[in-house]
Amino acid sequence: MNTDILSQAAAQARGLAIDAVHACSSGHLGLPLGCAEMGAVLWGGGGLRYHPEAPKWLNRDRFILSAGHGSMFLYGWLHMAGYDIPMENVKNFRQLGSHTPGHPESFETPGVEATTGPLGQGIGNAVGFALSGKRAAGKFNTADHTIFDHHVIALHGDGCLQEGVAKEAIAFAGHSHLDNLILIYDSNDVTLDAMAEVTQSEDAQGYFASQGWDVATIDGHDMTAFAKALEHAKNDDNGKPKVIIAKTTIAKGIPEVAGTAKGHGEGGAKFADEARKGLGLPEEHFYVSDEVREHFKEVAENHKHQFLSWQSDYEAWAQANPELAAELRAGVQGEIPSDLADRIPAFEEDYKDATRGAGGVVLQTVAKEVPQLISGSADLYGSTKNYIKDAGDFSGKDNPTGRNIWFGIREHAMCAICNGIAYDGIFRASGATFLVFADYCRASIRLAALSKLPVTYIFTHDSVGVGEDGPTHQPVETVSGLRVIPNLDVIRPADAEETAGAFAAAMLRTDGPTLLALTRQGVPQMNELSVSERRDGVRRGGYVARKEKGALTTILIGTGSELQYCLKAADELGDGVRVVSMPCLERFDRQDAAYREEVLPQACTKRIAIEAGVTGLWWKYVGTEGKVIGIDRFGLSAPGATVFKELGITAEAVVAAAK
Amino acid sequence: MNTDILSQAAAQARGLAIDAVHACSSGHLGLPLGCAEMGAVLWGGGGLRYHPEAPKWLNRDRFILSAGHGSMFLYGWLHMAGYDIPMENVKNFRQLGSHTPGHPESFETPGVEATTGPLGQGIGNAVGFALSGKRAAGKFNTADHTIFDHHVIALHGDGCLQEGVAKEAIAFAGHSHLDNLILIYDSNDVTLDAMAEVTQSEDAQGYFASQGWDVATIDGHDMTAFAKALEHAKNDDNGKPKVIIAKTTIAKGIPEVAGTAKGHGEGGAKFADEARKGLGLPEEHFYVSDEVREHFKEVAENHKHQFLSWQSDYEAWAQANPELAAELRAGVQGEIPSDLADRIPAFEEDYKDATRGAGGVVLQTVAKEVPQLISGSADLYGSTKNYIKDAGDFSGKDNPTGRNIWFGIREHAMCAICNGIAYDGIFRASGATFLVFADYCRASIRLAALSKLPVTYIFTHDSVGVGEDGPTHQPVETVSGLRVIPNLDVIRPADAEETAGAFAAAMLRTDGPTLLALTRQGVPQMNELSVSERRDGVRRGGYVARKEKGALTTILIGTGSELQYCLKAADELGDGVRVVSMPCLERFDRQDAAYREEVLPQACTKRIAIEAGVTGLWWKYVGTEGKVIGIDRFGLSAPGATVFKELGITAEAVVAAAK
Repeated sequence: MNTDILSQAAAQARGLAIDAVHACSSGHLGLPLGCAEMGAVLWGGGGLRYHPEAPKWLNRDRFILSAGHGSMFLYGWLHMAGYDIPMENVKNFRQLGSHTPGHPESFETPGVEATTGPLGQGIGNAVGFALSGKRAAGKFNTADHTIFDHHVIALHGDGCLQEGVAKEAIAFAGHSHLDNLILIYDSNDVTLDAMAEVTQSEDAQGYFASQGWDVATIDGHDMTAFAKALEHAKNDDNGKPKVIIAKTTIAKGIPEVAGTAKGHGEGGAKFADEARKGLGLPEEHFYVSDEVREHFKEVAENHKHQFLSWQSDYEAWAQANPELAAELRAGVQGEIPSDLADRIPAFEEDYKDATRGAGGVVLQTVAKEVPQLISGSADLYGSTKNYIKDAGDFSGKDNPTGRNIWFGIREHAMCAICNGIAYDGIFRASGATFLVFADYCRASIRLAALSKLPVTYIFTHDSVGVGEDGPTHQPVETVSGLRVIPNLDVIRPADAEETAGAFAAAMLRTDGPTLLALTRQGVPQMNELSVSERRDGVRRGGYVARKEKGALTTILIGTGSELQYCLKAADELGDGVRVVSMPCLERFDRQDAAYREEVLPQACTKRIAIEAGVTGLWWKYVGTEGKVIGIDRFGLSAPGATVFKELGITAEAVVAAAK
Repeated sequence: MNTDILSQAAAQARGLAIDAVHACSSGHLGLPLGCAEMGAVLWGGGGLRYHPEAPKWLNRDRFILSAGHGSMFLYGWLHMAGYDIPMENVKNFRQLGSHTPGHPESFETPGVEATTGPLGQGIGNAVGFALSGKRAAGKFNTADHTIFDHHVIALHGDGCLQEGVAKEAIAFAGHSHLDNLILIYDSNDVTLDAMAEVTQSEDAQGYFASQGWDVATIDGHDMTAFAKALEHAKNDDNGKPKVIIAKTTIAKGIPEVAGTAKGHGEGGAKFADEARKGLGLPEEHFYVSDEVREHFKEVAENHKHQFLSWQSDYEAWAQANPELAAELRAGVQGEIPSDLADRIPAFEEDYKDATRGAGGVVLQTVAKEVPQLISGSADLYGSTKNYIKDAGDFSGKDNPTGRNIWFGIREHAMCAICNGIAYDGIFRASGATFLVFADYCRASIRLAALSKLPVTYIFTHDSVGVGEDGPTHQPVETVSGLRVIPNLDVIRPADAEETAGAFAAAMLRTDGPTLLALTRQGVPQMNELSVSERRDGVRRGGYVARKEKGALTTILIGTGSELQYCLKAADELGDGVRVVSMPCLERFDRQDAAYREEVLPQACTKRIAIEAGVTGLWWKYVGTEGKVIGIDRFGLSAPGATVFKELGITAEAVVAAAK
């Protein structure tokens, strides 16, 4: 390792960060400056296996910047390493249209593996990448060919480590023996507001050890020490994830703020000129020397050889193992049978189980048709019914190919880990818990939606139908609270066939997550509609479940377990009544205007919506002359049917509203 | 300690749990059976200081059942201890109208300190109670009188401890030297789905030690060992919180399921008859023997003496320290000056700071007028501006009277801890972070709303006005996502005076939480309205900010930083235009129909709402003929003003929509 040239690169990376932050008067200098030596080792000293021309190389090391506010660390090093991030983008850090947003976004910038910034998430994502890596190695490597043996390396600071989601993920990683995971803990004793000692006094070594991790502590500015620790961590396949606690000086390079909370953000930028001098940089801003460029060209050349050698190995493997290769390709390219909905057997007409039960049945077929699907639960398989039968339980050590993931009572980490699996893109991730606990996961669900990740949430016990567990466990606002998240599809199917349609719709969606809200309680089959009408109706989000017999006078809109009340009410209300099933508002809104008008003709202003939840979002569909029957309060502890009645979610209420 | 009679009580408590769960065929037997001996020591063996006739005795020990699913543990022991929970309620466990809901609810049942059940929350609550206790002792005790020297004791299982919110709270408690806090860890090696070893392999002793806690491990069925450990934990004021790891057998008493995951829920109830025999219970269900009743009468008598002795001490203290006594009374009774809004000085007409800045100014006055207010931040005081000047930083050891709480980067625990402070009811809790991180706290905010806790959230950076930090940090759906939570007031003030009104409204609310959504960016003062019009307008949630000059043709509705665009547009649109400021939909909805009609006359159907966020909830106010200008997508990384323009949140857009 040529530490001379790497030191120059580190100084220039610091310069890029200072110049970029100075140019836009915002951003964070602390990490890019404090971690510059480690950046040099990672991208310029063989620390990471990568190939800038193939940022998605399957066997690359994954690097996740969990401390996403330090985004200039990533952009600077990725630029120097030869990724397609022109200097123009670095110069336009945090500006409209540039591919260098304030926090890293996986869909914006080559080489950026995950959308991070909300603290702690990146650690969860890294655990997901590591799980994916273990599973890929277990599934696709053969005695003759090693297709996957990469590592997952994440950089985080004190902030990430204070977050609960990180602590959940760390516990899971230790328990799951993810020894392909390496955290680099940028331990600079500073947080945004103050010195870290103001808010923390954790014994980090003791903590990580208690979670089943290996711990090494080094001087983060000592490139040799870091390179050695990293190499050791990579080579020690002892069943334990690794953390390298790197003691660093935040904002090192700007003496006026280095080592203090002022060094965290953009505060140091005003000392830019002095700092640049101190770092031995020339007058020219955004400077990278020819020597450093030359060095990275050599590095890239080496990496290219590794890549090409892997590629020829991969091709030999693919030829020798065509089925495995087809499965890997299907995973990476997101190939799902387009007729998936038709492949799921129809339910009996007298099937009466809850939609969670129907979901459990549907899942078994889906799992056969989509072999890349993996299905986890936060200690609730018995209730969420999403266990894939005969598919084994994942363990990094004993069973890396298992398709069921026992996440423990760690809902937030479950979703952050699912995001990591989805970013990696080899497997399809799904996770399950009670719907009310979506609140625990919301930050991760939001990031899945923002990052366009096709994660599936199988969340059950979707209303006051939860019953005896009471208001702490009864969603009333939860479904609507999720519907407002852009790019998240929330599907609340009404019966077993709509449930089948919902699973198919979720699987076939590739540009965002889908949340399935399933009942605890039994619901009847809507046999007056054919199986395919119901399944296809879900795909469109809303559809006519019963057409009026005469002139249209009234539209009743229902979702999920309340659709049955609309149908019952329509029986009583007579010929002019239409019933619309609306399992997914987002999908319905995406239909063209003609279809929406066909389902909800504007001319009919007498509209009644019913849902066992808050009413606010329904006014868009019923209009000012319409009515919404819902629950704008918390629930009650009593048997589910009693609660429905007590809170007025009944067919009678629909009839009364329509009269 | 009479272990004979306590053993009988333990057997009968087990019987109550078995009978209650059997009667309703739901609920959880594992904990009430596994922890029966500890329950006997707590309520019947001097473990807890309490007085059933005065459940809110200020110097009682607080007991929080974090593992709320084991609610029959609480109901059984509280019933036997003499709290006002008639046997009829125990018999009607989990039924409509009974005060024994499936999970404990603080507002339902005497002796229930906190609404728990969503796992991990109770540990956060307990930390809040402990903080409140430390602060109360620091503030109100004098050299002559000790008014507060109680302990906070919480019982939790593996589930709570796997949750991130618990881990955040535990780190905070260790750091803050809350040595008045004792966790009892019901370590039974079982979770709902499976043996705990399937999902966890944490070294609990090492973990707690790494967080600065004292750890003792005992046999949870050994009453003497537990009593000793508890006494030791209570007496050791060494600056460290304590955990007693109690190894127990889940569902002990029902041999068919004891020690297994089947023992967690109601599964054991079918073996009720055999189990009751094995426990030596008679045929009679819901049985408590005369001897046990007699024992608890004696216990209650003892406790009454303690209570009366404290009460006379309290009266002497109150006489000697009238000001302190008045302050304590004001805290406990929630007394806030009813004219608080008027006591806040008016801002200059040319004040232009962000509402977060105005909030920081307002807070200083509010803090003087409401001395019980304490104000925390999740490592963002510099940005959230809610530091109470000259009021010190809380530390359990060095400064228990400090009013500013450095929560660290632990948003979820911050809100769970605020709930604990609010349950304790002596101080008014508030917490601050960036609005987008409301997602991290949502489960705790929900519980505050459900439990009617007057917590204030000072959440800043409330829209894409966040700017350069980009979509990961820009709320678009966050405000609407919070508005759907029942009983939560979300106030988004438009200028400095509305901000003053918002703080006053939050403080004067006693039956639920208020969230203040404040801007990062500067906003102009709406000087065409008087100071009191704006402040009082916020109290009502919505009000006419500019009345039409001629016949009403159009209503423009704006909130927060977008109200200015309505006013600008109205300038251009002419005489028939009314502008409505709608800082709080929930408060507006609570106004009577006449007032709402006065503000938004039904006859005027041309209505346009604008908000820099998702549009879904606005259709209720604009109707089918109206329009909503909003942002139904994620944001962009660029300067805030650029993002507003790019996403069409402008006066021009309002004008165009109205034409």
